[in-house]
Amino acid sequence: MKNYQSLVHSWIQENNEIGIELLQQLVRNRSVQANEYEAQQVMVNHLKKLDLEIDEWEVEGDIFNHPYFCSTRKQFLKSPNVVAVKRGKGKGKSIILNGHIDVVPEGDVTQWSDDPYSGKIIKGKMYGRGTTDMKGGTVSLLLAIQALKELGIELKGDIIFQSVIEEESGGAGTLETIIRGYKADAAIIPEPTNMKIFPKQQGSMWFRLTIKGRSAHGGTRYEGVSAIEKALPVISAIQALEKVRNSRIVDPLYENKPIPIPINLGVIRGGDWPSSVADEVIIEGRIGVAPDEAMSHAQEELKQCLKDLEEQDPWFKKYPVGLDWFGARWVPGTIDEEHPLMAILQKKFQQVKNIKPRIEASPWGTDGGLLEKVGGIPVIVFGPGTTEIAHFPNEYIELDRMFEVAEIIALTLIDWCGVNN
Amino acid sequence: MKNYQSLVHSWIQENNEIGIELLQQLVRNRSVQANEYEAQQVMVNHLKKLDLEIDEWEVEGDIFNHPYFCSTRKQFLKSPNVVAVKRGKGKGKSIILNGHIDVVPEGDVTQWSDDPYSGKIIKGKMYGRGTTDMKGGTVSLLLAIQALKELGIELKGDIIFQSVIEEESGGAGTLETIIRGYKADAAIIPEPTNMKIFPKQQGSMWFRLTIKGRSAHGGTRYEGVSAIEKALPVISAIQALEKVRNSRIVDPLYENKPIPIPINLGVIRGGDWPSSVADEVIIEGRIGVAPDEAMSHAQEELKQCLKDLEEQDPWFKKYPVGLDWFGARWVPGTIDEEHPLMAILQKKFQQVKNIKPRIEASPWGTDGGLLEKVGGIPVIVFGPGTTEIAHFPNEYIELDRMFEVAEIIALTLIDWCGVNN
Repeated sequence: MKNYQSLVHSWIQENNEIGIELLQQLVRNRSVQANEYEAQQVMVNHLKKLDLEIDEWEVEGDIFNHPYFCSTRKQFLKSPNVVAVKRGKGKGKSIILNGHIDVVPEGDVTQWSDDPYSGKIIKGKMYGRGTTDMKGGTVSLLLAIQALKELGIELKGDIIFQSVIEEESGGAGTLETIIRGYKADAAIIPEPTNMKIFPKQQGSMWFRLTIKGRSAHGGTRYEGVSAIEKALPVISAIQALEKVRNSRIVDPLYENKPIPIPINLGVIRGGDWPSSVADEVIIEGRIGVAPDEAMSHAQEELKQCLKDLEEQDPWFKKYPVGLDWFGARWVPGTIDEEHPLMAILQKKFQQVKNIKPRIEASPWGTDGGLLEKVGGIPVIVFGPGTTEIAHFPNEYIELDRMFEVAEIIALTLIDWCGVNN
Repeated sequence: MKNYQSLVHSWIQENNEIGIELLQQLVRNRSVQANEYEAQQVMVNHLKKLDLEIDEWEVEGDIFNHPYFCSTRKQFLKSPNVVAVKRGKGKGKSIILNGHIDVVPEGDVTQWSDDPYSGKIIKGKMYGRGTTDMKGGTVSLLLAIQALKELGIELKGDIIFQSVIEEESGGAGTLETIIRGYKADAAIIPEPTNMKIFPKQQGSMWFRLTIKGRSAHGGTRYEGVSAIEKALPVISAIQALEKVRNSRIVDPLYENKPIPIPINLGVIRGGDWPSSVADEVIIEGRIGVAPDEAMSHAQEELKQCLKDLEEQDPWFKKYPVGLDWFGARWVPGTIDEEHPLMAILQKKFQQVKNIKPRIEASPWGTDGGLLEKVGGIPVIVFGPGTTEIAHFPNEYIELDRMFEVAEIIALTLIDWCGVNN
């Protein structure tokens, strides 16, 4: 058996520039939602050099009626999804390598020290929206695939590389790859995990509560019913529900998390005049979903929590708290920690980094939940980006981490998909 | 002594049309803030017929630095104040009769059954913005003055009639009459009291609370501090303050009011993303001020209440709750219930209506607070309008009540100012 580690390491070190140039090209194309076209063309042009079977298409059709479809978009014209397959020689295990091309908007430009799409490199860090989340991780995947190709290492199993749209907005891109029939024995998503390995990801859903009151003049406020006051027991009930839901999480992966699956009440608004009694309060929040929990179970629990308020206060019997599920949704994901891919990835990490990897459960969702819950594909999330800087101004990636992950992934592919020695 | 009651009654009954036409003219001029000019010209033209000394002027100068000045306006050009004086024969007590010319906007026109400024009469009610609040009451005053003139009843004391701007927006019009030197031994303001007599009026002030949090991702919400959660003890503290403040009110006039001087939290808004921890919550409200309480005392109590939170939670020590006094403000008012004008007004009410008047404390402020607290003039609020319909669509006034109040006021003037028999 060849010393693959040494070969892969050398090739990636000698070809750093390929990764840097590709990442810069990707970052300089501002691929926010509905604007992914140019970045996907960069991707396709690069994929062509790797002798892959390229499938580029616009999402349409059945997806809009899929129970896991979640998007505010009515069409995806000019927002292509891209999948590229490297066929194996046969009799090996296949793998999906999935990265999203969409980035969140740059926000307030004045908070950036430089153009948010500069791709500028300072002291080993490349700056720009999407460097960390997650074009850098995607470049790790492509470097890994190219290293194997250039080194003439032929795998038995198939590699299915995916550059998807819409991860930041509900996962329609990855859902579409499943509907289109792409399957594999396992998957890796190099989202920014700070090089930690995440076998579990928290899911989440947004909800909107509508609490009713009855208006009156503030000087005779006792003639009305304040929706702001009625919001207080609703908030308390949700705090209690969060406690109950979290008391069930006994997975040691969560032992350092004060609240493994938080319910966050992020927005409140109500009333429109200081001296009137508020007749409505809206609260918007997100409920965390446990890695092995059905989304519908979390929904049911919140619904029941609000229903229970009706026994405490007849006002809620008359005016039940409204509950809408709206906006974004991320499906939770989990892979058995004894899954062979977990063992391989940890081993390769240790070989490359000379330390044991940290295994944790992520506090946020990825498209991995869809691959697992809809596609039945076990997923590990593991990538080079910096969690804390994702979605923030002056987002960056440490390029050395990107190359390390490329190495770890290449070696993992060799073990997982198998080679003909 | 002549039978003034019979004379006044007959004159007003025979001259209903004068009041109706004048009220229609006033209502058909939409005298919302900064648009009072035309209605004041209607007023001046009418006053000219009554042989009064007319003083019409634009508010300017010192008022902007007065401690009781409250307005968002920077100038009052084309928004004249009007005062008209009927000199008495001497040695009588003087009286201010004060009505405001400004009306609140009509709001959503689709909620009105007719043009909000129609002045249309249906079954004894005249409809339109300002009929009840309070052009109808002002017409009562003018009918009373005219009745005395036409009947040749000459008073000893002066009558100072005032048609002021800005009552709905902080009282700059009435404040200006005080600054200009208009004084009297007592005052009556015919705001819409449903014919109740209000020797006391609740004052109020608006305030804005700013509660700080620290942002974080909702999936790791324990890394942040939710301003929504921090708002809960603030709300509780204010509810407790309201209890303490109201426990001190022992005046029997308030015995039927569950909360004599409410603190109303009318507006809440905070956070901008369901899956982020809210880093700020704003609460806007109005604090009721007791009739005999200094505005500054109420302000001090709210300030101290927020200060006390710092002992309960070190977060508030680091990030004290912000407190701003903004927007509208109404000074409370009180007159001794044993004041002779109270006795006269009640007696005249009973003569005209054949029932005892209801004496109450108003849950809202009027310009009476300024006349009393700044001008040192005892004030009674008593008028024909319907409290419940003030500021609402389809505002109306019962014309018979307007004529009754005219009668009661005319008879009150005779007794208060005195006549040479």
